[in-house]
Formats: sequence, C-alpha cells, structure tokens
Amino acid sequence: MALMSKGTVRKKYILEKAALVFMRKGFTSVTMKDIVEECEMSRGGVYRYFSSTKEIFMEIISSENESDYAFLGKHMEKGTNAVKILEMFLQLQKKELLNIEKTIRLAMYEFFIFHRDTMSYVLEQNYTAALSLVSQTLLYGIERKEITGILPNDAEKYANCMIVLLEGLSIFAVSGQISSETIDEQFGLFIKNLVNKKEQHL
Amino acid sequence: MALMSKGTVRKKYILEKAALVFMRKGFTSVTMKDIVEECEMSRGGVYRYFSSTKEIFMEIISSENESDYAFLGKHMEKGTNAVKILEMFLQLQKKELLNIEKTIRLAMYEFFIFHRDTMSYVLEQNYTAALSLVSQTLLYGIERKEITGILPNDAEKYANCMIVLLEGLSIFAVSGQISSETIDEQFGLFIKNLVNKKEQHL
Repeated sequence: MALMSKGTVRKKYILEKAALVFMRKGFTSVTMKDIVEECEMSRGGVYRYFSSTKEIFMEIISSENESDYAFLGKHMEKGTNAVKILEMFLQLQKKELLNIEKTIRLAMYEFFIFHRDTMSYVLEQNYTAALSLVSQTLLYGIERKEITGILPNDAEKYANCMIVLLEGLSIFAVSGQISSETIDEQFGLFIKNLVNKKEQHL
Repeated sequence: MALMSKGTVRKKYILEKAALVFMRKGFTSVTMKDIVEECEMSRGGVYRYFSSTKEIFMEIISSENESDYAFLGKHMEKGTNAVKILEMFLQLQKKELLNIEKTIRLAMYEFFIFHRDTMSYVLEQNYTAALSLVSQTLLYGIERKEITGILPNDAEKYANCMIVLLEGLSIFAVSGQISSETIDEQFGLFIKNLVNKKEQHL
C-alpha cells in the first residue's frame, strides 16, 4: 500500500472522529466545535481541511459507500466465488443493520431531510457506483457459471433489487424493527434467486 | 356503506385537509394553526377532535396504511386472481412513488427522525398489519393455484420482501431518483418469482 501523505492521514483522522460525533448526535445538532473537540485538535487544524459539518458529512458518506462496495472489487480480483463474495458482503451489511446505532444511518436520514438536494446528488453518485459494482459481480458470477439463476441481461435488475432491499432493511433497522432472522431470510431469498435454476436442473 | 356520524365526517375532513398541509410543509414546521386555517374551521372545531399535529399525523399514517392494504382484503373477498390483485396493488404503489410529492412520505421521514420512538410503534403496527394482509394474499393465491412459484411456508418471507422493497423504493423516490422503468423492473422481478416455477413447468 502506498504511504499516505501527512495531510491525507489528518483528513482521514478527522473523518473518523467526526463519524463518532454523527453517530451519537445525528446531523443537525452537530457543530464544527463538537468535531474539533472530538479530534482534540486546534480549530485551525480542522478548518484547514474542512469548512463545514456538511462538507465533512458528505465526505464520510462517500468514503463509507466506496469502501463498502470496494469489497466486491477486491474479491473479484482475488478470484473468489461470486456467490461467496455476495454472501460475505451481505454478512457485513447484516452486521451494520444489527448495530445501526454504531453507524451514521440515522444522521444520514436527518441530513437527507434538511439537505435533500445535496443528498440526492451524493446518493445518486453512490448509487451509481454501487449499482455498477454489484452488476459487475453478478456478471462475473454468471461468466464463471457460479450464478446460474439469472441471465446477463438481468444482472442490473438484480443488482438494483439488492440495493433497494438493503435500503429498505436499513429503514426498518433504524426504527428498531429488524431481527437477525428477518435479515437472513431476505438475504437468503435474494441469493436463492441467483442460484435457483441450477438447483432445479439438478 | 353505513352512514358516518357527523363527528366521523368532521374528523375525516380534518385529516384530509391536514394531509395537504403535511405534503406541502413536511412535519416539523407545521403548526395546529396551519391546519385550522387549511380546514377553514374555528380553532375549537379542530381541537375538539385533535390536540396536536403529532396526533393528527399519526392518525393519517395509520388510516392511509390501512386503506392501502385493505385493497388486498377487498379483492380477495371478490375472488380476484391473486397475481392480478398484487399487480393492481403494486400499480397503485407505483403511482404514489412517481408522485411522491403528493404524498406525506417526506413528512413521514421527518416525523420519524424527531419522534423515532412513537414512529417506531406506529410503523410496527402498520408493518404487522401489512405483512399479515400480503401474506394472506399470497396464501390465497397458492391455495387457488395462481401463485405456483412459492411454498405456503415461504409466504411470509415473500410478503416481507415486498414490503421491504416498497420501503426501499420509497427512499429512492423521495430523493428523486426513481424512474417508472426501475419500478416496473423491480415489481416485475417480484411477481416473476411468484409465478416462476409454473412457467418452467410448462
């Protein structure tokens, strides 16, 4: 891995600390002062990199989304079985859904309400990136004959389905109405559809 | 249909007018004064039935959810084909998703952020009612051999899947990122899974 510049390390540190504040307090009630205090840095040290909570928050969302979905890319490079990749990815998502108070999800919904235009833009970017990576994973699996239940033309449709499913489950998780069983059940249905026809042909 | 008492008619009228205010203004910025004005009634006339915007809002959510899902019950009583019932139901949902600004969805998310505990309770009630009605519709379809792609034991799982899907699509709709095609695609996938194995057996 390339060494990160001092500036990059600092930025990363600020984002990590700020994420903790957003987890605890949501979005609207968080001030730059809160973040400066959490970082135990000088005011100037934080403002050098970021000028507002909004800017910080948007960067956190994008980098989290990126690192979440980068998982898929990494495993395709390694040549991992496609169904296995998706199962592992969904297990990571499950962990987040069951520990939603340790994520910035609630802050995201709050941000979304108050900065809907900005958020729509960020969400669209994230969504496009996620859709592309999930589609690629499905196509990779079809190519490798690990995913036999869907046709290449349907890959994007199923990718969309997975993303919408995760979004829906996340709302239920935030409202405290989700069990480990429900998540397993829904992820299980999704995976089953990917491999379904294979089983029927056996 | 039974005649409604004068009180019931008034309450219904207030809820309808209040819904218009919530559509325009979200939740937090709406006051009882806004609702009184929209109703063109006296302050006392509204307060006789409702004491807060929160109370009104919760009643709107519950009655909307109820009337949405009552559609399923009505059509089962009529003996409509189960796949047809679900397709019609999803078409109604599609209409709402594509006209999300004419629904109280955004106000709901706002309410959800600020009254998470209350909302969780309301959502849980609505969710339980919806899950039960969708499951019943699926079982009805399986019984009538119209739904041949899933087993009775899986009915609740698929019902859950439909509800989670609608919730996820709704988030995308509120952020303005949904097309008629995407909705059709996702609803199509869901319906296809219900009838899937039948097609394969032909």
